Amino acid sequence: MENKNMLMIPGPTPVPENVLLAMAKHPIGHRSGEFSNVIAELTENLKWLHQTQNDVLMLTTSGTGAMEAGIINFLSAGDQVLVGNNGKFGERWAKLSKKFGLNVTEITAEWGHPLNPEDFRTALEADTNKEIKAVIITHSETSTGVLNDLETINKYVKAHGEALIIVDAVTSLGAFNVPVDEWGLDVVGSGSQKGYMIPPGLAFVSVSAKAWKAYETATLPKFYLDLKAYKKATDQDSSPFTPPVNLMNGLQAALQMMKREGLDNIFARHQRLTNATRAAMKALNLPLYAPDHAASTAITAVCSDDAEKIRSTMKKKFDIALAGGQDHLKGKIFRIGHLGFVGERDVLTAIASLEATLIELGHQGFTPGAGIAAAAKELL
Amino acid sequence: MENKNMLMIPGPTPVPENVLLAMAKHPIGHRSGEFSNVIAELTENLKWLHQTQNDVLMLTTSGTGAMEAGIINFLSAGDQVLVGNNGKFGERWAKLSKKFGLNVTEITAEWGHPLNPEDFRTALEADTNKEIKAVIITHSETSTGVLNDLETINKYVKAHGEALIIVDAVTSLGAFNVPVDEWGLDVVGSGSQKGYMIPPGLAFVSVSAKAWKAYETATLPKFYLDLKAYKKATDQDSSPFTPPVNLMNGLQAALQMMKREGLDNIFARHQRLTNATRAAMKALNLPLYAPDHAASTAITAVCSDDAEKIRSTMKKKFDIALAGGQDHLKGKIFRIGHLGFVGERDVLTAIASLEATLIELGHQGFTPGAGIAAAAKELL
Repeated sequence: MENKNMLMIPGPTPVPENVLLAMAKHPIGHRSGEFSNVIAELTENLKWLHQTQNDVLMLTTSGTGAMEAGIINFLSAGDQVLVGNNGKFGERWAKLSKKFGLNVTEITAEWGHPLNPEDFRTALEADTNKEIKAVIITHSETSTGVLNDLETINKYVKAHGEALIIVDAVTSLGAFNVPVDEWGLDVVGSGSQKGYMIPPGLAFVSVSAKAWKAYETATLPKFYLDLKAYKKATDQDSSPFTPPVNLMNGLQAALQMMKREGLDNIFARHQRLTNATRAAMKALNLPLYAPDHAASTAITAVCSDDAEKIRSTMKKKFDIALAGGQDHLKGKIFRIGHLGFVGERDVLTAIASLEATLIELGHQGFTPGAGIAAAAKELL
Repeated sequence: MENKNMLMIPGPTPVPENVLLAMAKHPIGHRSGEFSNVIAELTENLKWLHQTQNDVLMLTTSGTGAMEAGIINFLSAGDQVLVGNNGKFGERWAKLSKKFGLNVTEITAEWGHPLNPEDFRTALEADTNKEIKAVIITHSETSTGVLNDLETINKYVKAHGEALIIVDAVTSLGAFNVPVDEWGLDVVGSGSQKGYMIPPGLAFVSVSAKAWKAYETATLPKFYLDLKAYKKATDQDSSPFTPPVNLMNGLQAALQMMKREGLDNIFARHQRLTNATRAAMKALNLPLYAPDHAASTAITAVCSDDAEKIRSTMKKKFDIALAGGQDHLKGKIFRIGHLGFVGERDVLTAIASLEATLIELGHQGFTPGAGIAAAAKELL
């Protein structure tokens, strides 16, 4: 049905009406005092969301741009880095790091499995000369729905003492607890079209004092992504280059909503939606791609050789967009996004429509209604 | 008055209501067939606007990001480049080029004066070994309202034969004729918040076959700004990284409007608004910062030691935002933007309010009404 689209993908995520309307306001000058006030409020609320006193900088890029900035600002060609790779995004950061001439050691796990923190411990403990300058980790791997154990890996990075921890929190920030100061995360990148509940086009990087120290000796060339320019401008409630004024008006409304809901409630909601989704898939005898102990609270990947048929029926008949598998997982999994502006009703809706889709496709081996029943229990 | 803001700055420029409403639509998945159709239409219409068959690529950056991409994709550290510098943006491209290790020769003119094409001819003719790899020019210098003579400079670049011409058309594209194919412009960068009539957050680069050939041997590191990735994706009506879906919906509406108006009409309108603005300033005995023969059709800079008082009264009493002078021009000039979604009525409004402001500030030496009378003649 026209204009009846419901997004259950891992980004862009649904956007609240008040955020859309804030974005539809006429832009104002980005160098005006009025807009400085907006930047000041955003910066304060971004720090709240990141649970940090570190700088949190806003970039006009996608999440990949924020991660590139988070890597190239603090490293030099030839620097040794460990990159966790157990999915499409881990793979991307390894590739990006190599493009910039970093000396990359990949710590891998099979797609669908979490990185093993012990692999990081071994590599970091073996580095007695402290040659490893950074450990780059994808917290929630969007391609597989796996949540890596950032907290434990980070403990080993802290024990190493020298290396920075650089985190892709693109689908974890705002969906899972990422206490930047408590854990001592040096660099954390994220993007607007995920937990932030606004459309794509803005990205964020938080930077610790330790990372700024590394900046002083880092030699990779940079200009548009030079984070020091962003810091200098942000300290004056400004931006180094023309910022996306309308998206930032949307962000202002979205962060105000998030503050009203509260961080604990936001995280608990995402956990509840995840539990409900996973319980429903189990009840429908659909295998989950990520294990329970490493389940992303942003996205659930579900195994089915009928994945593409399921997606296409869900779209055509129920106007629900699910994500497919990427690369070798195409046709093998579908992915249900449940992050950002997603509530209990949305998850029930998706499960009910999925049940109807399975019936339509002639699936056997499940009890119609079992998914909803299982999900409902988790939503008590 | 609250919410009564009228933008007469060189970006963000005013945005039509239908564009704002297009941006307020719920985002759809950027990997959906529906959105592929949007990308295909945008690409076709961007080529129309650039008057080119070259690739025109969309980036999630400000204009500076597009210019960085347009420079680093086609050059290597140590490459000789000529950079025209007669204002803040020329200065920026020289600085950026140096950051990336290019061997920069600056060809300068005083702020407020156009670059002298003969300086380029001399430098290019002296380069018998064809060491100069690129000439980087700001077409319309936003900081001063000077339009550089790109057409003539480009002829000398073409006579050189080897060098690429890389153009900052951020405030000329859509405000002045920039016939990319007719002139043979290799790389042209621009940004959404100018002639495109949409808010900031999107940028554009057109790339010629000659530039793509240079890409093959260019060695500066790049990933997020790697234009080949954008080309590959664009050829499949897709994008390499998550694009700003809502801004692109706005762009779709804006380009459709521009096509209905027609390129010749758009350029004629900008010329008319420029002529009217300049005639009015002369009638009010306010000296123009750029000479008539090098007047940008996007922005008019006006000399006044009362510049900041004028801006503040225009803002407070008439809710019109004018731009100030940048760097050493702060307090010495004010700048009237007249590009994008700006019509005859807007220019008359600004002039009428400026006259009232001059009266309020006790200015002498002009006849009240003379500005409007002079402008009206140009709008016949």
